[in-house]
Amino acid sequence: MKSFKIPRTTVERLPIYYRALLGMEKREIEVISSQALGERTGIPSAQVRKDLSYYGEFGRRGVGYEVSILRRHLQKILGLERDWPMVIVGAGNLGRALVNYQGFLRHGLEVRAVFDSDPRVIGTYIHNLRVEGPEIMEQRIQEEEAHLGIIAVPAEAAQEVADRLITAGIRGIWNFSPEHLRVPQEVILRNEDLSVGLMALIYHLNYSIDRGD
Amino acid sequence: MKSFKIPRTTVERLPIYYRALLGMEKREIEVISSQALGERTGIPSAQVRKDLSYYGEFGRRGVGYEVSILRRHLQKILGLERDWPMVIVGAGNLGRALVNYQGFLRHGLEVRAVFDSDPRVIGTYIHNLRVEGPEIMEQRIQEEEAHLGIIAVPAEAAQEVADRLITAGIRGIWNFSPEHLRVPQEVILRNEDLSVGLMALIYHLNYSIDRGD
Repeated sequence: MKSFKIPRTTVERLPIYYRALLGMEKREIEVISSQALGERTGIPSAQVRKDLSYYGEFGRRGVGYEVSILRRHLQKILGLERDWPMVIVGAGNLGRALVNYQGFLRHGLEVRAVFDSDPRVIGTYIHNLRVEGPEIMEQRIQEEEAHLGIIAVPAEAAQEVADRLITAGIRGIWNFSPEHLRVPQEVILRNEDLSVGLMALIYHLNYSIDRGD
Repeated sequence: MKSFKIPRTTVERLPIYYRALLGMEKREIEVISSQALGERTGIPSAQVRKDLSYYGEFGRRGVGYEVSILRRHLQKILGLERDWPMVIVGAGNLGRALVNYQGFLRHGLEVRAVFDSDPRVIGTYIHNLRVEGPEIMEQRIQEEEAHLGIIAVPAEAAQEVADRLITAGIRGIWNFSPEHLRVPQEVILRNEDLSVGLMALIYHLNYSIDRGD
């Protein structure tokens, strides 16, 4: 199974299918058609079938997908069978929100350490996690064997934080700062500038109001 | 200019171009090639040209795009020339983070009111915004002429909040709860389940580690 042939947009949809299937499994739904999976996720059913076909033949024509089997396949495809210990740098509102984020634990994704440079914040607790100082960042990343780092610091500090994370062994960075980070090619970088999502929403809203819906 | 012919993925990239162009304008770059805009945004240059071509002929072959002109066009296309007063429901860590989010103000996007049902939170301040009780939500939405509502409450409360927002006149909802919301067709809904982004990052990270990069 190779990843480089799969369109990026397909990869972005896999977690959406996975999340929907988890919900169905909980409600003990056993079989689902691509149509129904499409309706549940807001993705056209032809797209659902195409996306999933990249990874094998999961569905049966006229029957649909077995929810548990497809859910487990997607879990494996997404790499969620492994542990992905995470560290967060920045214990401001956003960092705190991410530590407590309901959705992460549901997927077995655990924040193991939080760092902040503000002496007033170091030593305080978020949930049951103690905020630690930046001087032990490298040591803690190695102790926790963390490959995943979340950057929730102001733009000015983001590049320095990224450099330190990478030196300490972080291989994937989730960047919530609006800073455009430079990282080595082998590091996976995902930018999550929330204003991008907001602007896309406004685009649709603007047209909807112009059309007079 | 019609929106319904434009692929959803193109719309998602417009804010990324816009943000990059804003940065270039600040640094007084006057002309940029699709190649350079692609490198700056991580989007292939052929895709950049294709995306922008939906909205007209902005570039000149062999020269590129005039940064300020293209930036202003995108601002208009995205609907950012209008005011989009927003309200946030939920003044937990995530709601607080969104009120303070650096990126919003840069684009003229202003949070006008924040609501929470917790009596210990009502009356406290986030930045210079007073957290208000849910009983005046409808009144405040009308006063502020807000069309945009952000839901940052726990999953259990999300649907009720959405219903109230819509009744009060909200036309676009940015949903940060993992709840699958039911909204009337004319309401624009954007789900921002952050674990979806995290899972897509893990997918790439997992393959990168398997390949032994």
